[in-house]
Amino acid sequence: MSTSDTDIDPEFRPIFENRVRFAETDLQGVVFYGEYFTFQDEAVSEFFRQIDYGYEQMERDGWQVHVANTELNYRDAAEFGDELVNEIRVAEIGTASITFEYRITRSADEQVLADGTVTHVAVDLETGETRPIPDAFREAVAAFQGGLEASD
Amino acid sequence: MSTSDTDIDPEFRPIFENRVRFAETDLQGVVFYGEYFTFQDEAVSEFFRQIDYGYEQMERDGWQVHVANTELNYRDAAEFGDELVNEIRVAEIGTASITFEYRITRSADEQVLADGTVTHVAVDLETGETRPIPDAFREAVAAFQGGLEASD
Amino acid sequence: MSTSDTDIDPEFRPIFENRVRFAETDLQGVVFYGEYFTFQDEAVSEFFRQIDYGYEQMERDGWQVHVANTELNYRDAAEFGDELVNEIRVAEIGTASITFEYRITRSADEQVLADGTVTHVAVDLETGETRPIPDAFREAVAAFQGGLEASD
Amino acid sequence: MSTSDTDIDPEFRPIFENRVRFAETDLQGVVFYGEYFTFQDEAVSEFFRQIDYGYEQMERDGWQVHVANTELNYRDAAEFGDELVNEIRVAEIGTASITFEYRITRSADEQVLADGTVTHVAVDLETGETRPIPDAFREAVAAFQGGLEASD
Repeated sequence: MSTSDTDIDPEFRPIFENRVRFAETDLQGVVFYGEYFTFQDEAVSEFFRQIDYGYEQMERDGWQVHVANTELNYRDAAEFGDELVNEIRVAEIGTASITFEYRITRSADEQVLADGTVTHVAVDLETGETRPIPDAFREAVAAFQGGLEASD
Repeated sequence: MSTSDTDIDPEFRPIFENRVRFAETDLQGVVFYGEYFTFQDEAVSEFFRQIDYGYEQMERDGWQVHVANTELNYRDAAEFGDELVNEIRVAEIGTASITFEYRITRSADEQVLADGTVTHVAVDLETGETRPIPDAFREAVAAFQGGLEASD
Repeated sequence: MSTSDTDIDPEFRPIFENRVRFAETDLQGVVFYGEYFTFQDEAVSEFFRQIDYGYEQMERDGWQVHVANTELNYRDAAEFGDELVNEIRVAEIGTASITFEYRITRSADEQVLADGTVTHVAVDLETGETRPIPDAFREAVAAFQGGLEASD
Repeated sequence: MSTSDTDIDPEFRPIFENRVRFAETDLQGVVFYGEYFTFQDEAVSEFFRQIDYGYEQMERDGWQVHVANTELNYRDAAEFGDELVNEIRVAEIGTASITFEYRITRSADEQVLADGTVTHVAVDLETGETRPIPDAFREAVAAFQGGLEASD
């Protein structure tokens, strides 16, 4: 349940920019579709850094995140040397999971290349079991994003 | 519409086996989630080889495939050295697209590690536009798989 | 033959910066040794861009480069999130080859992580055979770097 | 010092076979030069498995290996779908290091694609410092390979 309309749909934020590496292309001359998950993951990592609750803090607090699901739709192809902008927004925080919407755009013409989602689940470092997301993390997200859609 | 019950749900076929490479692991000690798309893609490539209509034949016939969508659910983590079995089945062939269901399992205990789908779209090599899938390819899939669910 | 002492040993130039991606780490918690070649390659690509003779120009002029040899010495390990600086300098341009010295440093403490070389050979796009490096490329390198060590 | 002539130059042993993955190619239509280090590393990992002293045993014995140097010469290019054979032999075991000679060949025509070396250094798991290679490892290598060139 969202606490207000503005919470439901936070804006996409450019969070990670990268230039297509030669090694990321394949023999079709474009970025291999699996490479986009590396970009998506860097967008999430950078999000954690920007809310000031990165992997080191998770470790200190006894948890980490595992990817439970991801999906991408491919709209257009990126070529070697293209400058790309990766954007994410938190779509939903459940008891133990966080779902990001993700979008990657070519800078030159603002063409969306791919969009989709990735869901991370909180896992206890000691037991390896799913665990609730700490309030401190929730608050860091909310403070950064100015409101979130909550779910149960 | 499927032409018979057996068409609707062809069995998963083991089609590509691989052993987890050191380079495929990440600092959590398991295979990075994006790597599974490389495995998924090899499963599709091997499927094309086994139906005897590989990328070379596509090129001769003036088309290639682009990934339009992919989704994976992660069930368990693969570790360095684990032997994995990749299985696929054609879930649907549309006018211009083919959707595979995909599953990857750890050999030692038959635990499913991830499952999901990938949809490829046929693209004309000259125009770069979406085009119908050639009948010869359709027939090769049908002959290999013993029936398919058709869609419009 | 070098034209002056200062030509023999052009300074290293920072040419490509990157932050260690999660996917680039391995289960030892550091960047996999093979990943450094992706960084090295981006340093070379950026060098070609900066001398204003990139891959597109090579293609227009009917040639491309293939890697013939590479070597790296590893001094220290990069960790997830580390900010890295990649530096190169042209060590030698032969009739058909160009050798770069390469060095990658962690920004935080200026520790060299790896250093070595990579040699590219000019290949004719039509014949696939080794061919002389065009004078226009040589001149672009010389202009950028302020002199080069020549070899026969 | 070698104990006999046959010790100095043990034969190359095919130790790891792989088929070129689509994701391993680049826009030149061949395997990216950095990918060969993933293959090289798998050859080394498989060597450790075959001498029955793998990474798990190292960990139990309190050490691991870090790559200190690697070099490859590229002779010919591998294409998508090519079947490759990776061969290694131990060239030298020092007090704290082990150097492998490595060669990768295309099965279809036995063309060597790349050859070179990789040197691993033994590192203490607790201190992170270089340490002598345990005798048990040395003996496992010698038993497997039928003699080794020793160095000081």
